[in-house]
Amino acid sequence: MSEETNPGLVEPRLSRGLRDLMPEQMLARQWMIDQVRKVYEGYGFVPLSTPAVEYLDVLTGSAGQEAQSSIFTVANPEGERLGLRFDLTVPLARVIAQYRAELPRPFRRYQVAPVWRADKPAPGRFREFTQFDLDSVGVPSEVADTEVIAGMCDTLAALVGEGAFLVRFSSRAVLNLLLRFAGIAGERATDVFRVLDKLDKVGAEKVRLELTSGYFDESGDRIQGLGLASSQVDRIEAFLAVRSPLRAEVLDQLRELFTGVEGAAEEIEVVARISRHLAALGYGDEQVALDLSIARGLAYYTGPVFEAVLQDAPQFGSVFGGGRYDGLVMRFLGEAVPATGASMGVDRLLAALVHLGRLKLRRSTAEVLVTAMDPGLTDEYLAMTFELRRSGIPTELYLGEARSPGKQVKYADQCGVPVVLLYGSNEAERGVVTLKDMEVGRRKAQKVESRAEWLEARPGQREVPRRELVAAVRQMLADIARTADG
Amino acid sequence: MSEETNPGLVEPRLSRGLRDLMPEQMLARQWMIDQVRKVYEGYGFVPLSTPAVEYLDVLTGSAGQEAQSSIFTVANPEGERLGLRFDLTVPLARVIAQYRAELPRPFRRYQVAPVWRADKPAPGRFREFTQFDLDSVGVPSEVADTEVIAGMCDTLAALVGEGAFLVRFSSRAVLNLLLRFAGIAGERATDVFRVLDKLDKVGAEKVRLELTSGYFDESGDRIQGLGLASSQVDRIEAFLAVRSPLRAEVLDQLRELFTGVEGAAEEIEVVARISRHLAALGYGDEQVALDLSIARGLAYYTGPVFEAVLQDAPQFGSVFGGGRYDGLVMRFLGEAVPATGASMGVDRLLAALVHLGRLKLRRSTAEVLVTAMDPGLTDEYLAMTFELRRSGIPTELYLGEARSPGKQVKYADQCGVPVVLLYGSNEAERGVVTLKDMEVGRRKAQKVESRAEWLEARPGQREVPRRELVAAVRQMLADIARTADG
Repeated sequence: MSEETNPGLVEPRLSRGLRDLMPEQMLARQWMIDQVRKVYEGYGFVPLSTPAVEYLDVLTGSAGQEAQSSIFTVANPEGERLGLRFDLTVPLARVIAQYRAELPRPFRRYQVAPVWRADKPAPGRFREFTQFDLDSVGVPSEVADTEVIAGMCDTLAALVGEGAFLVRFSSRAVLNLLLRFAGIAGERATDVFRVLDKLDKVGAEKVRLELTSGYFDESGDRIQGLGLASSQVDRIEAFLAVRSPLRAEVLDQLRELFTGVEGAAEEIEVVARISRHLAALGYGDEQVALDLSIARGLAYYTGPVFEAVLQDAPQFGSVFGGGRYDGLVMRFLGEAVPATGASMGVDRLLAALVHLGRLKLRRSTAEVLVTAMDPGLTDEYLAMTFELRRSGIPTELYLGEARSPGKQVKYADQCGVPVVLLYGSNEAERGVVTLKDMEVGRRKAQKVESRAEWLEARPGQREVPRRELVAAVRQMLADIARTADG
Repeated sequence: MSEETNPGLVEPRLSRGLRDLMPEQMLARQWMIDQVRKVYEGYGFVPLSTPAVEYLDVLTGSAGQEAQSSIFTVANPEGERLGLRFDLTVPLARVIAQYRAELPRPFRRYQVAPVWRADKPAPGRFREFTQFDLDSVGVPSEVADTEVIAGMCDTLAALVGEGAFLVRFSSRAVLNLLLRFAGIAGERATDVFRVLDKLDKVGAEKVRLELTSGYFDESGDRIQGLGLASSQVDRIEAFLAVRSPLRAEVLDQLRELFTGVEGAAEEIEVVARISRHLAALGYGDEQVALDLSIARGLAYYTGPVFEAVLQDAPQFGSVFGGGRYDGLVMRFLGEAVPATGASMGVDRLLAALVHLGRLKLRRSTAEVLVTAMDPGLTDEYLAMTFELRRSGIPTELYLGEARSPGKQVKYADQCGVPVVLLYGSNEAERGVVTLKDMEVGRRKAQKVESRAEWLEARPGQREVPRRELVAAVRQMLADIARTADG
């Protein structure tokens, strides 16, 4: 608190990592969420809501070890051990376990909600952020995985357009085949996959060294090797060399590579079926690739895994991803339940859409601001406002304290309202209203030389008969939309 | 935890006062919120989001006295004193104070979000619940109050229909006139209004006694009197007798009663202007009443106050209410800012809509379930599913483990999907699909005598050519909608 501050006052501020979402961001976010909801409701997914506050043991499991430090803990009057949820998967698992007798099975739900992680804040990384999760629970068939992938495509097609994204998928089961193929014991899987995950970052040579004897990095630190034999790494490299933009080719190469590996034919066939189903539904190689290098923290997943990237914004990484996991309700029921799903990073995808210019940020819901310069005309301002609203044109009546038209037009500019209506005693006498196209006004204003010239030209302004108000506003909004698209 | 529970497992459960919202409730709630959003976005209100977690002193003020006990406190790794917001007004005040240089003024925002109060749970009363708030900040004009009232009418007309609700309004300023009229000192205002608030509950006689000498209630407890003179109470009663279904009559009576009271003409004129503006916009006496008895915890409000009741569900009380308050940012800036707004009780209004039968509860977003009895036909099931989806018909493909048509139809029934598609090798050979109207099936099944008869009649089932699938489903859904409306 600064020295001058009145000590009786509270400083308006937020704790670190938390933020407000201003109307501009919120309008974009709501539009995006509505698009995704529409796709998944069309697929028959249903919404679920769970409370933000859960018991700590529900969140972390009875052992209580995982992620504990990043949980915001919560106290209620009863002094129970509570916390804010850090994802939407654990609450889903609790719901499945708690109502297993009543819930339909399969249970296919989506949930859009904030989650909280008390991680170290960083630029673009917040302690409260929104997730959009969808999951099919109780579905062993790979048709469910197919459907999640198709939904990812439909969602991204709606948001960024076809051809602007690529969904990549792979399978944890296929990676397990790799272990068998390379003669690596199952308990080393996590270590090996962790090293393979670095491929993009450090390159093939260093990955090879880390899988075998280890090496010293640039800063002279020793990177411990896993001690695999050279022949084992050769086989891993042969696997990683299986690449093609065509899914069928990847499958052919994979079948050839894994010839004779026990169980390979069956597991590869699962992936092949997903690929064929997708093809039959029109999701071709340009939309969905079979990419054996994708990892997605594989310890968690048990079957197909998938993630989506935006072709023209690869720097945003995976914007939508998921996979099949059987351990969902293990913590509560001690039994495996098949489940597959995906989670959309709402913030990350939104940032990418803005970066790509696929999303026009608006600061206002109103398309018209009715200015109010003459208090004697209030009832006429109200009448015009409601006439426009009832014609389906979102309209704001200026309610502030400024009286001058200039200040009210400036307010419209600040809010991003595209059309301003001006009406004073002069207009009232003549039975007209003046409409102002804010964008034309701004563009033309840059070209005129003097203030006098500007006032003379009154760029973007049009006088229309009062009785033609609605039609004239519609026309101006249509012209604006056309100019913006052109 | 029960004795049989595996001690390594976590019991799936929620802390008291918290609840999950199942798809049925969520679909209804989303529909309702979308309606309200649409009205207020049409008015030019913009969405705002603030984090759930705020500093405790922001929530409670520097004195920290208010509502402290009902706040869920939160701890982050830095050990700061935090809590979950208990309303949406305090976060709005913080936002106004924190960004006052950048925010447009007026700032007209809505926010739909959960709030948390660790009150004693009771039936229908939860510790996490959703509020829908809208406020115009920085607007001294009563045109803003007019607009909030109009928006309440438009919202309720969309939700329950015209004629099914009544918005009542009054004014804190008029009640201040009553104090002057009855010769009551300003510092007694809270006590007097508290007693007047009991009018509906205890009746006029007991209110009179409590305002004067006090009395003994049924259980023999002494109710302390406020010691007002009989002449003072006469004047209060004269005020409370000002009642009429016509706003203009209430205003006339009020003007007459307060003749000679200092400042009365001006304050009554504010209320009269709201009434006239509303009338000019078509909000007549049947929609909006001037009711001087409404209170709404008046200590908080400084001007017009309003609340809405549903005519056919008065037991739900006020479902939407608010008023003008100047103290919004006092805690942060030490200055008054004019503001007016309203808050909708999402849960209460939803419960009332269900009670009134204005809202059909759905458990599913899908209108068709494509059953999958023959794994050999999976690609055809997928093709039909996506054909329907792409025609805009929300469709679910059965993905569970049940193979029998009976079990899959039962699943559709459990989920509330109205149309089921049946397709097996028999249908495939003949190039047809069977559509089943679940509601007709259910109704007819009650009338037939034997299982054999039921199987023979196959109530509600229709065979259609495969190529006419989309048109036939559309027809069946239209028939169902017509029957439901009739």
